[in-house]
Amino acid sequence: MTENFFEERKNIKQVEESTDFAPKFGSDGLIPVVTTDFESGELLMQGYMNKEAFVQTLKSGEAIYYSRSRKSLWHKGKKSGFIQKIKEIRIDDDQDCVWLRVTVNGGSSCHVGYRSCFYRSIPFGQSTNKSKVILEFKEKEKVFDPKEVYGEEPNPTKL
Amino acid sequence: MTENFFEERKNIKQVEESTDFAPKFGSDGLIPVVTTDFESGELLMQGYMNKEAFVQTLKSGEAIYYSRSRKSLWHKGKKSGFIQKIKEIRIDDDQDCVWLRVTVNGGSSCHVGYRSCFYRSIPFGQSTNKSKVILEFKEKEKVFDPKEVYGEEPNPTKL
Repeated sequence: MTENFFEERKNIKQVEESTDFAPKFGSDGLIPVVTTDFESGELLMQGYMNKEAFVQTLKSGEAIYYSRSRKSLWHKGKKSGFIQKIKEIRIDDDQDCVWLRVTVNGGSSCHVGYRSCFYRSIPFGQSTNKSKVILEFKEKEKVFDPKEVYGEEPNPTKL
Repeated sequence: MTENFFEERKNIKQVEESTDFAPKFGSDGLIPVVTTDFESGELLMQGYMNKEAFVQTLKSGEAIYYSRSRKSLWHKGKKSGFIQKIKEIRIDDDQDCVWLRVTVNGGSSCHVGYRSCFYRSIPFGQSTNKSKVILEFKEKEKVFDPKEVYGEEPNPTKL
């Protein structure tokens, strides 16, 4: 069902310089996906799609990922209401990474409750000469309470 | 040498909600890296770092990746001159993805010659009902000539 969407990867010129849609899925069947806010440019999350998720995303215009922890398709926001509506999709030079530019109803893309998954910064440069790197919170307040939204569902984070 | 930088991953609360720097490297020893332009927010590239690349990036304040095709550390821009100066580094909720916000001297981050690696868009929605997806070029002109910069070096793109 998904095969017709994707061209065979024939040569580097075709992949890099043509209009052929010939994405590369890794040995695990996945392609990394980078998702930014269409208005602010803020990085919201980084996830993965398999072929089926990619096709469903293209057809629906909403971000559908493949969840590695749940091992299944993952229609982002179906549970929380924070659907990611796609404004633009781009693919990179060697077609092994996808960029989704989205708007999010409600404004959150992080299961911990923050607006972006990237709510902490890492100090660098001189401060890293100290023995210990200490993360800094850049978002101070959560957009929603994960317990209210997800209840007793298992946390997707794996150690 | 690199171990002192990273905390042991002890529990989900520590990883998601504390200031501990406890990144997760995959079974291949790599963590995905998303790199955007600090000013415009544009996605420039997506790459990977191993522990050594991560430490060197933090120490130098310049983006140093691990090249999967060359199987070695990759100081981005050392050959082309398009060094990525880091303005901010962020890490995501479960600490398995890094976001670099950079400025690029010369403005290009793509070995094909474009400003961004993501110079083509994928049509979606109704147009995908057609039998074939046709990519659309969003950048029309290259910033530099790859042949002049890289000469006869092998192209890093893998089929």
